[in-house]
Amino acid sequence: MDRSRLEAFSDGVFAVAITLLALDLTVAGPGHGRLLHQLWMHWPAFAAYVISFFTIGIVWVNHHVLVRSITVVTRTLLFLNLVLLLFVVVIPFATGVAAEYLTAKDLTANGGSVWDPRVALALYGAVFLGMSIGFGSIFEWTLHGERVSQPVPVEKRWAARVRFVGGAGVYAIAIVVALFSPAASFVIIALVAVYYVAQRTPRTGDAGDT
Amino acid sequence: MDRSRLEAFSDGVFAVAITLLALDLTVAGPGHGRLLHQLWMHWPAFAAYVISFFTIGIVWVNHHVLVRSITVVTRTLLFLNLVLLLFVVVIPFATGVAAEYLTAKDLTANGGSVWDPRVALALYGAVFLGMSIGFGSIFEWTLHGERVSQPVPVEKRWAARVRFVGGAGVYAIAIVVALFSPAASFVIIALVAVYYVAQRTPRTGDAGDT
Amino acid sequence: MDRSRLEAFSDGVFAVAITLLALDLTVAGPGHGRLLHQLWMHWPAFAAYVISFFTIGIVWVNHHVLVRSITVVTRTLLFLNLVLLLFVVVIPFATGVAAEYLTAKDLTANGGSVWDPRVALALYGAVFLGMSIGFGSIFEWTLHGERVSQPVPVEKRWAARVRFVGGAGVYAIAIVVALFSPAASFVIIALVAVYYVAQRTPRTGDAGDT
Amino acid sequence: MDRSRLEAFSDGVFAVAITLLALDLTVAGPGHGRLLHQLWMHWPAFAAYVISFFTIGIVWVNHHVLVRSITVVTRTLLFLNLVLLLFVVVIPFATGVAAEYLTAKDLTANGGSVWDPRVALALYGAVFLGMSIGFGSIFEWTLHGERVSQPVPVEKRWAARVRFVGGAGVYAIAIVVALFSPAASFVIIALVAVYYVAQRTPRTGDAGDT
Repeated sequence: MDRSRLEAFSDGVFAVAITLLALDLTVAGPGHGRLLHQLWMHWPAFAAYVISFFTIGIVWVNHHVLVRSITVVTRTLLFLNLVLLLFVVVIPFATGVAAEYLTAKDLTANGGSVWDPRVALALYGAVFLGMSIGFGSIFEWTLHGERVSQPVPVEKRWAARVRFVGGAGVYAIAIVVALFSPAASFVIIALVAVYYVAQRTPRTGDAGDT
Repeated sequence: MDRSRLEAFSDGVFAVAITLLALDLTVAGPGHGRLLHQLWMHWPAFAAYVISFFTIGIVWVNHHVLVRSITVVTRTLLFLNLVLLLFVVVIPFATGVAAEYLTAKDLTANGGSVWDPRVALALYGAVFLGMSIGFGSIFEWTLHGERVSQPVPVEKRWAARVRFVGGAGVYAIAIVVALFSPAASFVIIALVAVYYVAQRTPRTGDAGDT
Repeated sequence: MDRSRLEAFSDGVFAVAITLLALDLTVAGPGHGRLLHQLWMHWPAFAAYVISFFTIGIVWVNHHVLVRSITVVTRTLLFLNLVLLLFVVVIPFATGVAAEYLTAKDLTANGGSVWDPRVALALYGAVFLGMSIGFGSIFEWTLHGERVSQPVPVEKRWAARVRFVGGAGVYAIAIVVALFSPAASFVIIALVAVYYVAQRTPRTGDAGDT
Repeated sequence: MDRSRLEAFSDGVFAVAITLLALDLTVAGPGHGRLLHQLWMHWPAFAAYVISFFTIGIVWVNHHVLVRSITVVTRTLLFLNLVLLLFVVVIPFATGVAAEYLTAKDLTANGGSVWDPRVALALYGAVFLGMSIGFGSIFEWTLHGERVSQPVPVEKRWAARVRFVGGAGVYAIAIVVALFSPAASFVIIALVAVYYVAQRTPRTGDAGDT
């Protein structure tokens, strides 16, 4: 297995997943009230679309930076990469659920619960946490043996790991916050995307940015 | 980050987005009136499909022309490219909404408004305007620093920019026209696609064709 | 525009379109009668899936054979390629409609017509005819000027064209037959796929196999 | 036809099919009971998603290992590859049906049958069996003539074939078991994925791992 086909397959999955996000954007159409009102009521869907879009985009960027220096492709790497993609692919689903429950009304009607938006946002954060852990596992894998052409120097590894734990930690916090305030959790997840977009271009030595 | 993977990812997103356009093509099926009538009533969906298909196709062509001369890939470029793709991915949604409202009847039934088709077409134009601005931002980015192998000569830059402002300007006009006549707005957006398809092959020096 | 990105984009569209075919495969699920019966009632959907799958697969093969010898990529070629892809992308829709109406019952209920299956199959044939013409246009384009590295010899061009007219002609016949017998039209379109699958590997000199 | 475009097209289909799996993940949304309960009731959908995801991932890995040593691309190979992809593309459909019927209640309501979950799981196993046979056919094709750069030595071929028959055989057993216990069949199919994930990296000489 050479690296280029690993990249081609991963790029394909990233590209399809990021495009499927748009399937969550829907309006009920004619006969369901004013269109402007429909669009307005769906603002969380649009916000969640933008957040998920940029988060996947950032992971794709960092994935490339991390993968391009890999010199040996093992079955372990392929498995870790599949775990990462497993969470990437599930993002459109979690995005849709989060958006739907953020504006849901009459939550207790038909057996619903006021806890539902909290569960939805916790799910949203959990998928991003899983993706973050999957990416961190690939990074950790690159540190051992002679697996990359430009390995992260030993003295910088802990700094990189701390940033990883930080990234995953913020998603963990977002999950906990979701149990109290779904909106606050949503804002935290959005800020993570803003933070990584605003960062400088990653290099191999600091590839663990998500 | 080398250019080839930026192209591969962008190509993937363009290819998926252009194919998802076809998901807007639907008929209600048996038990909902004559099929020919159903197809006929959906003619705006077919027209919008063709317009959006060629518009995405043209942007893909121009994207390639613009990107292939880029020699340095920065995080800013990746961000601008994601903004462009953000709008490309949302085109199937906007296309579906525009098509649905162009033939909607009894607009005021169930709380709808006669303004709905106008809003739908304004949304359609706005997505194309966003895409146009995203593409223009990448073009503007290529003008500064030594970022492309064959930079547009200084004396031709304003001509290129004018064409950009022209392209984005027509979409802006289409948005305003939509508030008076959705059908006229639809025709204007279609004519932009016809204009760019009819143009000669772009070269780097005149890449800003969308 | 170099050829490789034309191929990459086309490959992406072919791959997505061929995969979206499977979205037409659905059963109503629990509470809608026995599953075996549901599956059985949908046999035209499965048959249409297989036919469309292999037809797209064959066009992809021939597309590659035709494109790889192209030495100059012009805007005309890009436009013709987009026309071809326009029809490829619409195949899942036409496949779904054809499958739905082939087993529809009570055609005249709710304002339906006994002509509906005939219209559905004519639409199915028309999309394949459009694809065939799009492919033929690209082939014709390769014959003029110095556009391919191994041009089809002049004395073999008419033979190639005849085979083209033959391919497109069979689809045209299938459209006409659909007006009398949708099932017969379905069989004819299936036989075209069988014929091309059974053929030997195309070479540039006989690339016009669809 | 060179090998690289066969790989590009196959990679595209694998990537799209693996991403479409996530479309089976749905919840009814607000107004349909507690979200946690909805998610819990859909646990087979999540389990089936993971199983199908890793199965497709493994086949993609093995496909690459098998294909990269191929030196001559014939129409027979392209046809066998299309057969393999035909089954890969249909996996999301079979996954959705299996997941839906594993938790279905009141099976005999509205004309349903207690046999439905058994049929659903038999279908799930049959699609994997078809994929396995498709992959085995490509492997068998590589053994004859001078078609690969590093052919499997004659003395190792029967061992490879036995492993093939073993892989396909387990799926055949899963189909039979489904007629008695859908849940047991589900577990068997999951164990096949676990087995192949746990295996060492395949090399050309033992490429037939699925």
